[in-house]
Amino acid sequence: MEQAISAQSPGATPCSVLHEMRTLENSGAYFLPKLHALRELNPTLKVLDVGCGCGSVTASFAKTIGPQGRVVGVDVDPAKVQHAKNVAAREGLADQVEVLEADAYKLPFADAEFDVVHTHQVLAHTARPWDVLAEMLRVTKPGGIVVAREGDLDSEVVWPVTPGLEKFHKLIATAMNARGKGGGGSNAGRQLLPWALKIGVPRSKINFSFGTWWFDTAEHKEIWANAMADQVRSGQVREVAVKSGLVTEADLDEMAEAWEHWAAREDSSVAMMHGEIIIAK
Amino acid sequence: MEQAISAQSPGATPCSVLHEMRTLENSGAYFLPKLHALRELNPTLKVLDVGCGCGSVTASFAKTIGPQGRVVGVDVDPAKVQHAKNVAAREGLADQVEVLEADAYKLPFADAEFDVVHTHQVLAHTARPWDVLAEMLRVTKPGGIVVAREGDLDSEVVWPVTPGLEKFHKLIATAMNARGKGGGGSNAGRQLLPWALKIGVPRSKINFSFGTWWFDTAEHKEIWANAMADQVRSGQVREVAVKSGLVTEADLDEMAEAWEHWAAREDSSVAMMHGEIIIAK
Repeated sequence: MEQAISAQSPGATPCSVLHEMRTLENSGAYFLPKLHALRELNPTLKVLDVGCGCGSVTASFAKTIGPQGRVVGVDVDPAKVQHAKNVAAREGLADQVEVLEADAYKLPFADAEFDVVHTHQVLAHTARPWDVLAEMLRVTKPGGIVVAREGDLDSEVVWPVTPGLEKFHKLIATAMNARGKGGGGSNAGRQLLPWALKIGVPRSKINFSFGTWWFDTAEHKEIWANAMADQVRSGQVREVAVKSGLVTEADLDEMAEAWEHWAAREDSSVAMMHGEIIIAK
Repeated sequence: MEQAISAQSPGATPCSVLHEMRTLENSGAYFLPKLHALRELNPTLKVLDVGCGCGSVTASFAKTIGPQGRVVGVDVDPAKVQHAKNVAAREGLADQVEVLEADAYKLPFADAEFDVVHTHQVLAHTARPWDVLAEMLRVTKPGGIVVAREGDLDSEVVWPVTPGLEKFHKLIATAMNARGKGGGGSNAGRQLLPWALKIGVPRSKINFSFGTWWFDTAEHKEIWANAMADQVRSGQVREVAVKSGLVTEADLDEMAEAWEHWAAREDSSVAMMHGEIIIAK
């Protein structure tokens, strides 16, 4: 499975502050009541976190379901797998959390192994997101749930709107749509419902919603602007973008500076919707 | 004050089902905890609802603050004032609710008369939204709050995307931006923060957030599609749009049919962000 490119810094560590601030509270609120209800019935829940990335949500799962529960995180990137293992160890959760390298299209588990199978900001970057959803359903127990949340980049709103930020948005959307290749992309959030229906899930088994996040405080805007500026300044992204012919090095410098100016303003903000789906098996 | 055009049916009644389904729960959740806290301290709250339109939120305020509280709704449109009065009477709230015809730029009240001054989906349709906010602050008591929520139409996401729906979105955004004339418009939601700062409110007195709504059930999609189709089929809107040269009658028919086809699909949805602001006086 491809990793998220929208907020990824390809430097020495694969994980930015922006990645590591993700928790169940800020990224999984849409299914927390359902998770708590499942845990009431069964304190030994088994959770699978698909495309677990830097592992902050994986660790958050372990803390939320309690010491009798078990969480498995999988990611295709060995560097992220190692990082997620370190996060679990640092948080004293090594007994509860296991992290493996695996392909989301072919999960290395038997049918019906997990009570909750989760993914976040992953399907948008895959070419066949419906196949990942089907695979997630396969490893879910009857009575369990598949939960997924994906950004819809086309819904992003920024204030103020400046040429550098407009160029940045266009570049990221183009890169996402090239990577998704007819599957995921910059309008993934709204497609969680059609993707679930496409693989034969009855509408009555689906709960679909939209959530939002935004950054408007000085502290959060600095985190966001740094992550965005890093994307266009750092080696790999910069090289690929320039080679593609879509932008020049001067364009990329303008984008990075635009985010820095944006973060320094008192009246600036950024917000984006996410599609959210709960599928009952 | 201009009325909302984004969901307005200019037929025999100025109020659509879409308007009348708005309540504090679905349109004011961002400030409900603050409202409950104020009511704990003072059971005789005075609330002003600016641009109250069809009065469903006005009535919802009266029910929420309880029988000792008083709510005044104002609107510039006499037909809406009468409708809002009828709603209050029908709900048995006539003793608690007063509705007046008034201009939001010149509210007919003394300084510091109200504990809570509210507006919803109104500023986006005004040319000087910051002046409305300043006027709302003027009539707010020290210790009270001004609360406002505005859609950001540019964040709207629809599935599936069809040519008729794209044309519709463009027409509505153009109409909103023409009406806002440099003030409100299709990106109003994100501007609540800059507007409040522009009139001198310190950042520390402002709580800014983004919320979302979406329609994905058959029942809700029918309500939405009917309201949208009515806009482009009914006399006034149709005439203005065609005279403007932006669209033809055939375009408008295509838009109405596109919404009807959209509503009939199982996998369709529409979602949009709103900016939300709480200003402490």
